[in-house]
Amino acid sequence: MYFTQTFIPTLREVPADAVIVSHRLMFRAGMIRKLGNGLFAYLPLGLRSFRKVEQIIREEMNGIGALEIKPPVIVPAELWKASGRWDAMGESLLRVKNRLGSDFVVSPTAEESFTALIRDELASYRQLPLALYQINTKYRDEVRPRYGVMRGREFVMKDAYSYHADEASLDKTYQAMGRAYRRIFKRCGLSVIPVKADSGAMGGSGSEEFMVESVIGDNTLILCKNCGFGANVEKAACKDDFDAPPSLEAAQIAAASTQPLEKIDTPSVKTIDELWGFLKTEAKSFIKTLIYRALNVALDLSSAPGGTVLEKRKPGTDGTAVYPEAFFAVAIRGDIDVNEVKLAAVLKASEVGLAADTDVVRLTGAPVGFAGPVGLSKIPVIADITVTAMKDAVTGALIQDAHYAHVAYGRDFVPWLTADLRTVVAGDCCALCGGELYEKKGNELGHIFKLGYKYTQAMQVHYLDENGKSRIPIMGCYGIGLDRTLASVIEEHHDDDGVIWPMTIAPYQVLIIPVKYEGEIKNLAEQLAQKLEQAGIEVLLDDRQERPGVKFKDGDLLGIPYRVILGDKNLALEVPSVEVKRRGEQDSYLLPIDGAAEALTGLIHTELAELNR
Amino acid sequence: MYFTQTFIPTLREVPADAVIVSHRLMFRAGMIRKLGNGLFAYLPLGLRSFRKVEQIIREEMNGIGALEIKPPVIVPAELWKASGRWDAMGESLLRVKNRLGSDFVVSPTAEESFTALIRDELASYRQLPLALYQINTKYRDEVRPRYGVMRGREFVMKDAYSYHADEASLDKTYQAMGRAYRRIFKRCGLSVIPVKADSGAMGGSGSEEFMVESVIGDNTLILCKNCGFGANVEKAACKDDFDAPPSLEAAQIAAASTQPLEKIDTPSVKTIDELWGFLKTEAKSFIKTLIYRALNVALDLSSAPGGTVLEKRKPGTDGTAVYPEAFFAVAIRGDIDVNEVKLAAVLKASEVGLAADTDVVRLTGAPVGFAGPVGLSKIPVIADITVTAMKDAVTGALIQDAHYAHVAYGRDFVPWLTADLRTVVAGDCCALCGGELYEKKGNELGHIFKLGYKYTQAMQVHYLDENGKSRIPIMGCYGIGLDRTLASVIEEHHDDDGVIWPMTIAPYQVLIIPVKYEGEIKNLAEQLAQKLEQAGIEVLLDDRQERPGVKFKDGDLLGIPYRVILGDKNLALEVPSVEVKRRGEQDSYLLPIDGAAEALTGLIHTELAELNR
Repeated sequence: MYFTQTFIPTLREVPADAVIVSHRLMFRAGMIRKLGNGLFAYLPLGLRSFRKVEQIIREEMNGIGALEIKPPVIVPAELWKASGRWDAMGESLLRVKNRLGSDFVVSPTAEESFTALIRDELASYRQLPLALYQINTKYRDEVRPRYGVMRGREFVMKDAYSYHADEASLDKTYQAMGRAYRRIFKRCGLSVIPVKADSGAMGGSGSEEFMVESVIGDNTLILCKNCGFGANVEKAACKDDFDAPPSLEAAQIAAASTQPLEKIDTPSVKTIDELWGFLKTEAKSFIKTLIYRALNVALDLSSAPGGTVLEKRKPGTDGTAVYPEAFFAVAIRGDIDVNEVKLAAVLKASEVGLAADTDVVRLTGAPVGFAGPVGLSKIPVIADITVTAMKDAVTGALIQDAHYAHVAYGRDFVPWLTADLRTVVAGDCCALCGGELYEKKGNELGHIFKLGYKYTQAMQVHYLDENGKSRIPIMGCYGIGLDRTLASVIEEHHDDDGVIWPMTIAPYQVLIIPVKYEGEIKNLAEQLAQKLEQAGIEVLLDDRQERPGVKFKDGDLLGIPYRVILGDKNLALEVPSVEVKRRGEQDSYLLPIDGAAEALTGLIHTELAELNR
Repeated sequence: MYFTQTFIPTLREVPADAVIVSHRLMFRAGMIRKLGNGLFAYLPLGLRSFRKVEQIIREEMNGIGALEIKPPVIVPAELWKASGRWDAMGESLLRVKNRLGSDFVVSPTAEESFTALIRDELASYRQLPLALYQINTKYRDEVRPRYGVMRGREFVMKDAYSYHADEASLDKTYQAMGRAYRRIFKRCGLSVIPVKADSGAMGGSGSEEFMVESVIGDNTLILCKNCGFGANVEKAACKDDFDAPPSLEAAQIAAASTQPLEKIDTPSVKTIDELWGFLKTEAKSFIKTLIYRALNVALDLSSAPGGTVLEKRKPGTDGTAVYPEAFFAVAIRGDIDVNEVKLAAVLKASEVGLAADTDVVRLTGAPVGFAGPVGLSKIPVIADITVTAMKDAVTGALIQDAHYAHVAYGRDFVPWLTADLRTVVAGDCCALCGGELYEKKGNELGHIFKLGYKYTQAMQVHYLDENGKSRIPIMGCYGIGLDRTLASVIEEHHDDDGVIWPMTIAPYQVLIIPVKYEGEIKNLAEQLAQKLEQAGIEVLLDDRQERPGVKFKDGDLLGIPYRVILGDKNLALEVPSVEVKRRGEQDSYLLPIDGAAEALTGLIHTELAELNR
């Protein structure tokens, strides 16, 4: 391809909102342009690399027997109402009303579409397992899209969905997907960190996220220095830093022989530090109690404190009734933070957040700052496991300017529920090996998870098993964002001057720069390009009437792996030669022009083979 | 590919709404499924053929130097407001409001997106010409989607847009596109009829539509039996069936010596036939006068009858002021129908239609049925050319139960405007050669046209020419619908049993049917499949445990070009053989199994070469 016959508008300047490297370089190299907030157009150069990512994903999906289909992007709302996500998804779901007043969704993912297709076609266990995928346009109505295609509103995602007769079959496909994902990222030249993940609004459990390290990552990863274990902080557990907690009965027996509960007036205490000083204690001895508001709680609260007066919504199509709004007191050791994702999972809630001050006052009967589990009766107390291991603890007394000391779990309060609600932090110990954990910021590129029966049950998918019995298939779900995968390749492979493409994703593999584009140099440049193209190598020939310096600068920016320079001096050598420079390497070297095409082809094939291995 | 490892849910029955062959067969062959009204999912088999159409289009676009890009599907409304189409497009445009209240469009075409990209990048004439294209999802909010993917709401279109410094350059690209389109359809095995077309709501002129004959076609084509000329009835002209009309002055001079205008009472006349009888005349002598209501008229009406009282909207970004609503009297020879598309073009209106009866009464001062051009003063009279050639005519007198006889053009009335407004019909004479014209129904698969300056002017695109002068580029626009191209291939290539794919579009090229899938037959079938696949042939091996009859029936339905049957009898011959049947041909023949793969590969390559030539 001749440079003058393509459309690569390179730039020296970038817009002010391009704060990360991939956004800046994709913009400067003429790969993308912005058409609206979070809406990007890929220009010819960007699209070439984009299609390579797409093709790698397609090959790996086909390689494990997944079948490509193409459902519509615009989907009738009925399907989303059937799954319950029409209500659950909130404002990030882009909803459209057409001229006839029917509701539609611009798909952000396609559990509903795939499951609706399966529902109408599935009859027998013989059709299972079945793994289908699409590589298609998606939309998520981000309030604040940024970082270029890394977090756009419209994007392309490969999403696969699998259907199985049993969990063993699901696990087999899940494992195959995990291997395929590792191959995809390796082939793209990406270092990914696979971590255990919370499955978010998707429902289900058993999931793995494929993360890349990123300073602008919106995920915090907890990683073990020792064994390499990785988890999303939203789901990370750690080794307890306390002795195993006693059973409730054991705690009650032990408490009988300890100091009785004592109310202490703390009128002059203004800050938490003053409290420690006043009580001569520390955060580790304090039972911190936070009031949470939770939405759409699917847990049965009929026997919980305050549960009988809660409004309960009618069951949805999947038979689950939810409480639109409920409040909980969460008790946790004073030096530890509550993990709200874990809390939402325990409560089976669509959303949790700290309650408003007015609600705290109403529910605890005391000003903010004096909540505690002792005597709290209007709402259920959820205790983190740490609390059950505490001895001789301090907590708020539900009265202004008063605390309880010598609080004993089992004697002075019994939580309605006990669970792991702890936010793991750097310095905690690995749950697997006890090694020290550390934190990294990461961006999610892919996610595989076992969805379970959520959609197949809600949308009433049935098949007949070997015995003619009607059964519901179990489902898995597997996504990769193409745009952010491409952007992440640039994040990992660049220097100050531009992109340094891995051979597999490079828009072109060889950039030919004739120092001047005329006479013999022009002829030789064209011959070399032709030879390379005949060998299947993708070549960009810079035929612009520009100074060599401009061409070199653009060449560095574009990041094409091999740069071949044709100049008078080297062509006049005894062995007429060209100068070859591998992008990203310091030094260039001479290659005789006779055989240069063959030599370059060999080098490129070697690099491709290494990445695709 | 093994049949049991793909997902091809064939059916005997079809839904009631599948009334055309391609819809029925795509559904029965498991190529598509419906997810909503006008919303279809391509299943694996359908997607394979779809991708082949896509690839042919991509190759031909690249072949003429067009560059592929990928703009978003969801586009900010500002771009559509800048072009004026936000108002002009009406309800077929799907509009979305996002969570922040911003307006967006689900693209039906992309003049705005491409032009916005160009606007920001174009600086110099050296960048021109530039032809860009995308193959991307589109949406048109059809009120009544039907005929499967032939007229869906969501569809995929290749749309290209070119930008030029002058008309000569535009014409060169326009011609190249015309040749590329002919190649695309030939490679798909389609017989298309290229016809002159009206350019509809797109604006501009100089356009060609690529039609396929279809009983459900929504276009009427006018074709010449003699010279092969073709035109869309919306734009078709014909050779006049009357002597060249006189000039206004000549008509006035001639009229002075003819019978004077005479008012005739026609009280008992109820029907148009009775009128002819009563007046002893015929339709050809009658000046039919119809009152039309036109929307968004861009023609200057300031000097027209009634023009000064019209509401005039402020000029849009392109500087054109329009009249939101205006009325016109159209006078035409009684035996001819008005072509409303021609009328809209003459008036530069976004829409025209017959006025309501109340408006007719208000504007003509007479009941419906007595309109005529003589004495009509409240609105402009637009005369078809036929009227200017009429002598001694009859027309309505703008009074109940009265007509005028001996009406003479130029003496008794002078139209505000004269134009060709005639609807050409079968039997009229070809404008080029005088041959007899006939009609066909057709479906549009592609459309190329010279858009002119409509978008580049409205969206203020500028570049500097050789002399440093700022200029606006001229634009061309070129679309192909992929879904309906694929459906049209089936419409043209099928029989009662199923599809008969052209080799280029076939989802697989060889279907191998082992009569039973076990023992030696199974081994040989797998070896044959392997050999063919190694030669690059796409093979479907029917490994299902089904009766041969079921496999043959499905084979006919799927339409894979070559069917190879492996059975005990032929494999036990002295020269062990397989039975080969070309889909669509009556007879099968035996081929020695040794060398069968090579022979089939040769046949397939020959067919591919023939179509791709």
